[in-house]
Amino acid sequence: MRSTHEGRKPYNVEVKAFQRGYTMDKPSQMYLLYDALFALEDVRELYRKSLPTGFTEKEKAELTERVQKVRTLLETLESGDKSYPMKYITDKLEPRIREEAFINIQPIQAAGRLTPEARKALIAYGDGYSVCDQCLSPFRLDKITKPPVQEFHQELAEFLGMDVARVVPGARRGFQAVVSSLVEKGDYVVLSSFAHYTEFLAVEQAGGKAKEIPSVNNVVTGEACAQKIEEVKKETGVLPKLIMVDHFDYTYGNEHEVRGIAQRAREYNVPFLLNGAYSVGVMPVNGKEIGADFIVGSGHKSMASAAPSGVLGVKSEWADKIFRTTKVTGDVTGRTFGIKEVEMLGCTLMGATLITMMASFPTVKERVRHWEEEVKKSNYVTTQFKRVQGSAILSEEPRKHTLTHVDTTESFDTVAKIHKRKGYYFSDELKERGILGQFAGATRRWKLNVYGLTWEQIKYLSEAFIEIAEKYGLPVTG
Amino acid sequence: MRSTHEGRKPYNVEVKAFQRGYTMDKPSQMYLLYDALFALEDVRELYRKSLPTGFTEKEKAELTERVQKVRTLLETLESGDKSYPMKYITDKLEPRIREEAFINIQPIQAAGRLTPEARKALIAYGDGYSVCDQCLSPFRLDKITKPPVQEFHQELAEFLGMDVARVVPGARRGFQAVVSSLVEKGDYVVLSSFAHYTEFLAVEQAGGKAKEIPSVNNVVTGEACAQKIEEVKKETGVLPKLIMVDHFDYTYGNEHEVRGIAQRAREYNVPFLLNGAYSVGVMPVNGKEIGADFIVGSGHKSMASAAPSGVLGVKSEWADKIFRTTKVTGDVTGRTFGIKEVEMLGCTLMGATLITMMASFPTVKERVRHWEEEVKKSNYVTTQFKRVQGSAILSEEPRKHTLTHVDTTESFDTVAKIHKRKGYYFSDELKERGILGQFAGATRRWKLNVYGLTWEQIKYLSEAFIEIAEKYGLPVTG
Repeated sequence: MRSTHEGRKPYNVEVKAFQRGYTMDKPSQMYLLYDALFALEDVRELYRKSLPTGFTEKEKAELTERVQKVRTLLETLESGDKSYPMKYITDKLEPRIREEAFINIQPIQAAGRLTPEARKALIAYGDGYSVCDQCLSPFRLDKITKPPVQEFHQELAEFLGMDVARVVPGARRGFQAVVSSLVEKGDYVVLSSFAHYTEFLAVEQAGGKAKEIPSVNNVVTGEACAQKIEEVKKETGVLPKLIMVDHFDYTYGNEHEVRGIAQRAREYNVPFLLNGAYSVGVMPVNGKEIGADFIVGSGHKSMASAAPSGVLGVKSEWADKIFRTTKVTGDVTGRTFGIKEVEMLGCTLMGATLITMMASFPTVKERVRHWEEEVKKSNYVTTQFKRVQGSAILSEEPRKHTLTHVDTTESFDTVAKIHKRKGYYFSDELKERGILGQFAGATRRWKLNVYGLTWEQIKYLSEAFIEIAEKYGLPVTG
Repeated sequence: MRSTHEGRKPYNVEVKAFQRGYTMDKPSQMYLLYDALFALEDVRELYRKSLPTGFTEKEKAELTERVQKVRTLLETLESGDKSYPMKYITDKLEPRIREEAFINIQPIQAAGRLTPEARKALIAYGDGYSVCDQCLSPFRLDKITKPPVQEFHQELAEFLGMDVARVVPGARRGFQAVVSSLVEKGDYVVLSSFAHYTEFLAVEQAGGKAKEIPSVNNVVTGEACAQKIEEVKKETGVLPKLIMVDHFDYTYGNEHEVRGIAQRAREYNVPFLLNGAYSVGVMPVNGKEIGADFIVGSGHKSMASAAPSGVLGVKSEWADKIFRTTKVTGDVTGRTFGIKEVEMLGCTLMGATLITMMASFPTVKERVRHWEEEVKKSNYVTTQFKRVQGSAILSEEPRKHTLTHVDTTESFDTVAKIHKRKGYYFSDELKERGILGQFAGATRRWKLNVYGLTWEQIKYLSEAFIEIAEKYGLPVTG
């Protein structure tokens, strides 16, 4: 069924780098490894299509043949084959080797990479409603004990430093649940001038109006928040219904004054939602300690989980409102719907997504304790990065995060201006060194995220920037 | 890191059956197969933690060791080992072998089982934002061309017989998007007396009121729909804002008069949402041909996809309303958010979930053409099932669906009344024959779904009911 689709142009940029020959070993080996994994899935399918009592002779023969295929692939892998071709999964899907054959510095992907445990869990629990085998009364996802979904929810609340937690299909659905519960048409919400677009959409979806808190040096402060609250009060006669601020923002990865904002929120008695999409799962974050009423995190952004997944933590005083259960009764049938929660629309992540969160959770709980080391790596990269004269860091320094906004207008962009590939020369050079995730063609302002890279990878990456600069004669300081 | 956790009681019912010894081969082999797959994931991790330029000598040695582990597992698998123990994935997660070592008749899981292609795609695209590597302007999921997400959306609309389609985190989020767009606080929605609870929740979440259409012989008709519309009109002075009806319902798997309902909806000029959670992906469904304005399907229920996933198809005349783009501007920053859609909250399924839908899609498109064969299997099972005297089929007959509601009050329940295990004896008997998914302990009214089983499995399952009846002396007709 699968083929190399000769004549069709592969879409992965990885493949282009592969074809250039710079990093031949790893792509070839990853394609082999994928084919071994896929061949094992073909073995697995035999089990799905046979009787519980065991295999027929024909099935046994088929098993032998399929296992032999895996064995052959492993031999080729070990032989160090450098020319194994990419094969499509289905007609149009290429296996993704970005995380294995390359260093991926894509700004939003770094902390969403799955742990080995999550990848294993995904293999075992990929099917539809896979965690619902033992869904018993009262029939709600967070009440399932086998697998231990209920226990996970309790640990999750504790991890967030909140009282009650739920999993949601992405951080955005966490914003929506809170906003929909608190905001009526025409109500105001105060949010950060670095708010993620999904916060705006959640407000718009609920019919509310969003007002931004200005920043000072790209940091949103408690003081500015108070001023904005006053402004809304003056303009509308009432206080905003909610304050939402990003712990670390998506643009600069700057830390905002969330404790100061929580303090002001308390003074005005306006609830405060902390958007921890870039912090929950990579660093220690305690909602109550910060003073948040709600905390939202992203599974696929910072908790090593499959998309779409996210978490919503709530202080107990708000739990009944945000997680209110249905009050509906069918007028004809008299049906009621138990303890299903309206804003969750009942159950949320019934399989693959939840299982990756759960499987990664022990690692996530451990890794947040090593955040300082990640920040150290981040600062190492920025320090080396600035050795290329003219390169600037737009994010606050020293870095407190692994996501960094850089400006290479005065360095790499000067080459782009005269290069026939324009800004793409820079991406080309990175790709040829096995580095992906930089926005293709960008040589002015762009972002990178080095979360989770090993020190060897960090040094290799830093050296690559220097090497490219030197190749094009850009001045580099010692 | 992984262990057999001796002393801890495994939670999988599979394991209990395994321990009883009835189906020893397959569970043991599946645990071996999982360990081989997991060992390959451990090999993969070496690639993630190394430099793009290739392995060090130490890494090469590690590779050899890890590959050897896989080889040893494959040898043990081929040897026909029947005693390989279950090993945990993480501290508390057991590998799920329900689909491989058993026949799973769980009512909602059958058509959500992944295809081999989806399982392979999941391995390759499990990481967080895995489909977003080449997200370019205008930065929206359904515009991504590599992998071919945009093309998939076009094909999906065509498959649904609608003009525009989007993927959503479960059918429920499709209901929500439509209801939120059309229903204001206090507005009425008419829905089926077999409506899924998530339809009620979507209405409740939007502040609307739900009214049920009564059924005749457990089928909702166009005539009854018209009467309900009249009733709402009389009561409130206005027409309902939306009609939602399930194509096949979750209780009986009965087909409802969706064409007749669409006809009445048109006459009253009320938009009609067809809930195809139990039809889209298993049988041919054409929204326009039926006369629906909106059609919703479920990925994890009927499209062989990971959860949470679903589809929403819309006629062009409604597309601008349901998929309206954001109008917000940041008051401080002047930011606008392009073509992000308010009800979608921007992007929806950014990785694992979408990739399984896409990978299964060629198979799904093909399998709907073989629905009649699935229905034939369903009717074979019910015919055999009724041979046990007193067993009744509560769903309409002949079956038009693979989900069936049965009543064994007069057959298997008569044994439960005197058995020390009560109704659990029946589940025990099924489990010992390698059959899972029947609601544990239920011997009166319960449901099963035989979708996707091979004829051999269908016959084995049917025979199992007869066998159990005979074991307990229940009368069986020829």
